[in-house]
Amino acid sequence: MNSVRYSYPQLKTFCIDAFGKFGFSPEEAEKITDVLLLSDLYGIESHGMQRLVRYHKGIEKGLIHVRAKPEVVFETPVSAVIDGHDGMGQLIAIRAMGLAIEKAQRTGMAVVSVRNSNHFGIAGYYAKMACDAGLVGFAMTNSEAIMVPTYARLAMLGSNPIAVSMPAAPYPFLFDASTTVVTRGKLEIYNKLSKPLPEGWALDENGNACTDAERVLKNIVAKAGGGIMPLGGSTEQSGGHKGYGYGMLCEIFCSVFSGGTTSNHTHVGGKGGTCHGFMAIDPAVFGDPAEMRERFSAFLQELRDAPKAEGQPRIYTHGEKEILAYADRMQNGIDVNINTVAEMKNLCDYLGMDSVKYLGDVDLSAAKQSSYK
Amino acid sequence: MNSVRYSYPQLKTFCIDAFGKFGFSPEEAEKITDVLLLSDLYGIESHGMQRLVRYHKGIEKGLIHVRAKPEVVFETPVSAVIDGHDGMGQLIAIRAMGLAIEKAQRTGMAVVSVRNSNHFGIAGYYAKMACDAGLVGFAMTNSEAIMVPTYARLAMLGSNPIAVSMPAAPYPFLFDASTTVVTRGKLEIYNKLSKPLPEGWALDENGNACTDAERVLKNIVAKAGGGIMPLGGSTEQSGGHKGYGYGMLCEIFCSVFSGGTTSNHTHVGGKGGTCHGFMAIDPAVFGDPAEMRERFSAFLQELRDAPKAEGQPRIYTHGEKEILAYADRMQNGIDVNINTVAEMKNLCDYLGMDSVKYLGDVDLSAAKQSSYK
Repeated sequence: MNSVRYSYPQLKTFCIDAFGKFGFSPEEAEKITDVLLLSDLYGIESHGMQRLVRYHKGIEKGLIHVRAKPEVVFETPVSAVIDGHDGMGQLIAIRAMGLAIEKAQRTGMAVVSVRNSNHFGIAGYYAKMACDAGLVGFAMTNSEAIMVPTYARLAMLGSNPIAVSMPAAPYPFLFDASTTVVTRGKLEIYNKLSKPLPEGWALDENGNACTDAERVLKNIVAKAGGGIMPLGGSTEQSGGHKGYGYGMLCEIFCSVFSGGTTSNHTHVGGKGGTCHGFMAIDPAVFGDPAEMRERFSAFLQELRDAPKAEGQPRIYTHGEKEILAYADRMQNGIDVNINTVAEMKNLCDYLGMDSVKYLGDVDLSAAKQSSYK
Repeated sequence: MNSVRYSYPQLKTFCIDAFGKFGFSPEEAEKITDVLLLSDLYGIESHGMQRLVRYHKGIEKGLIHVRAKPEVVFETPVSAVIDGHDGMGQLIAIRAMGLAIEKAQRTGMAVVSVRNSNHFGIAGYYAKMACDAGLVGFAMTNSEAIMVPTYARLAMLGSNPIAVSMPAAPYPFLFDASTTVVTRGKLEIYNKLSKPLPEGWALDENGNACTDAERVLKNIVAKAGGGIMPLGGSTEQSGGHKGYGYGMLCEIFCSVFSGGTTSNHTHVGGKGGTCHGFMAIDPAVFGDPAEMRERFSAFLQELRDAPKAEGQPRIYTHGEKEILAYADRMQNGIDVNINTVAEMKNLCDYLGMDSVKYLGDVDLSAAKQSSYK
């Protein structure tokens, strides 16, 4: 037994109660849960229940301040800077994107940049917030440094995801991806399986290509050099300087606009300091939004209908896999990895919650110890 | 002799006079020349004098209308849609970015989206316009379809470059890159040299990896399938869906916002239809621009100072190579490939210009016939 299947309502109850126990209000706990579970529903396991232990440790270590409230420290009709005061990333980000949406609805477009926050889950959640309001949404975040810039040997940028969402039929466009080749979560999976990494993913402490996941992960934690390659790899021939450039674009909207810490200075010396960036654009500032939606939907359909590569059954548009996963998991439940269930049980014990009531009487003998440091 | 060295003023005179002969006003000819020559000064030969023949053919075939004037067809305080009426891309783009800058100076940020334009040269020129005005600039364009989306066998998106520029000391940040692994120009260079392409660049007509530059280029022209891979390659393992996603981001700002033609419909049936997107953001909407500039400059310096990969002498920040090339070429002149000089001579003959006066008495026996179709 490598996973346990739970229904969405079951995980929701567990998650809301757990964050309530941490000291968040019921409304706050529901917001955090909504972000985390959308990730599991979308099939992005790395950012859902699997991250609970990270938030747990973050609160315990004092990186995440449960009672902190985000504060608008600078504002114009089209912009704001928010200081998160080291609060929970999801709460700060929902507030920030909400403000960007409000402003864009009045002025046409707005950017909100955030400093002193924490990990906010999937960037796509916030881009989708704008999309759900009929706008084009953009969400970005920096993170602990894991990306090694072209020709460097030390990680200087974060995974720095950029998410973009725009209304379309039958489902919206939702692009959400790190500007590195892969995220750290992928390396953790290879490490758990003791599998060598694919070529073109990671670098060792000397800046040379490396397929040893354990070595790379240890080096990242120790800030000993090496890390993950930018999208495009480690050379200009394969376009690595472009992934590095998108990482910089993300940094501009997050740490530079907000006056916060760039990725190379976050999670240094016991401090967090994650920064986010959000943008919302009302399509009505370019004409009739319904017509635009129709044209855009037609283009997405053309992409899906394009001739397939030999042996490939399907071309996806961005967000389509997530929509399919969501429908499946809402109906059939969410498979949670046995190691993650073990972490959830530990969390129950830590918070004084009845684990059998929340998670069932699960045989956890197959679970390995958490690799979280 | 594979190249001829010209001074910047010499090329400028030639170029302004040539575009004057095509029927552009002296002011228009100077604008077009400024875009083209910045590319050569930046060391991006593919988009400078080498492209003259393409503009020549575009005017001759009626794709580029010399007397067309860009028209603002929709406008709000933070946005505009411009119809280029098939005019010269550089003139339309300078007008559009100028408008975005004006609007951003009044409101804080603005987006201008353009339809029915033509090739506009380097995207970086327009991002730099905003940067020169103290703003953060973004410029994008779609193009004839050359990018094959993940798991497709037909090119559906253009090279779709995204350029970003932001003020910094001692020189600005200027990122300008196609969302494909490489541009078509790179394939043309390999083809001219009869060299096999590096792995991970291109696909054949069946959607399989292909290193035969000639075959790929012929297929692109014939729209017979295949083309260039998105940044990240042709599989999800190497992140190809991410490059495809950035290509979509570009398409949203260009063809979707403007109501123009998406890349898969441009340059089809004797019509052009290139679309552009521009955004300008005033850093003052987030606080003191001087402080931001200082912080950003410090971060760029940290990147340059970061430990280097084994065997690598230098880490570049984006735009740095261009600044170095500019200084060198302004002082020492610009080396123009002998084939390009031959094309320039042809252009002189076509336009009734004295080629010896403009280009000198050059021995062109080493020049090959132009590969332009």
